[in-house]
Amino acid sequence: MRMSSSISSYLPSDTYNSLPKDGDVTYLHTMVRSADLEKTMHFFQAVGLRETRRKESENGRFTLVFMASAPGAPEVEITYNWDPETFAPPSRSMGHLAYAVDDIYAKAEALQEAGIEILRPPRDGKMMFVKSPDGISVEILQKGTPLEPKEPWASMQNVGTW
Amino acid sequence: MRMSSSISSYLPSDTYNSLPKDGDVTYLHTMVRSADLEKTMHFFQAVGLRETRRKESENGRFTLVFMASAPGAPEVEITYNWDPETFAPPSRSMGHLAYAVDDIYAKAEALQEAGIEILRPPRDGKMMFVKSPDGISVEILQKGTPLEPKEPWASMQNVGTW
Repeated sequence: MRMSSSISSYLPSDTYNSLPKDGDVTYLHTMVRSADLEKTMHFFQAVGLRETRRKESENGRFTLVFMASAPGAPEVEITYNWDPETFAPPSRSMGHLAYAVDDIYAKAEALQEAGIEILRPPRDGKMMFVKSPDGISVEILQKGTPLEPKEPWASMQNVGTW
Repeated sequence: MRMSSSISSYLPSDTYNSLPKDGDVTYLHTMVRSADLEKTMHFFQAVGLRETRRKESENGRFTLVFMASAPGAPEVEITYNWDPETFAPPSRSMGHLAYAVDDIYAKAEALQEAGIEILRPPRDGKMMFVKSPDGISVEILQKGTPLEPKEPWASMQNVGTW
């Protein structure tokens, strides 16, 4: 298989956020594969991430895009192979990625405006689920205490699975 | 499907590490499912994570174990359903989890001592891959510049896929 991560000669120090509390192990990223880079990036942009770095390999015929809320924050690594590939949605061994946000209703509106369906609406003011175009489930949680229940979310029904 | 994340009434502030640079979106965790909680925890312990919190649900018949290098660091959420289940290994849409470590050779030894096979040995002093008992691929990278190539790693062959 193609080992896309080997193209960096070293890991730049600004790509991880080593805090004393991390001990000797620092979480860097979760890598997911994309069948359509533009669509996948559009999804994670709507979640609230932006591109922090990118690698392209002519030889390997792939693009890696790293996205995070800001440089130094934990990343999603999106691997896009230039030769079209289709793959099955995640099996049950892969659950989801989770993010906490300042205002879950504002985020739900932003996601809808970006054309992303809310599969599990934040009826309780604390949790919603959406899914990437490649089937990766993303949980979004309200930071701190839940917000007051509010329409249209409070009476919105679930859609599909997540 | 069981929505295991809904059992917390709110998200305790010590379960996320909101830094100013994170903006309004803070990465929390990647959730993976486990067919054998003890085996999966043993694996992530060898990677360098420890249990930071745990939820058990008698009604839902599941256990959630959160593991991180330290409290407040990004977590892996391990979902274990008490009723035995088997599931396919991850499809290609799920790539891997990645961590940076202070000393990749020390980590490789610790993994071997824990009985975990190094699938892609750190021949280059900068990268190795292992796989969880549930098939989740984990990339481990040397922080900063690669270490000098060193035996037995330098001449160790790849095993399987990752």
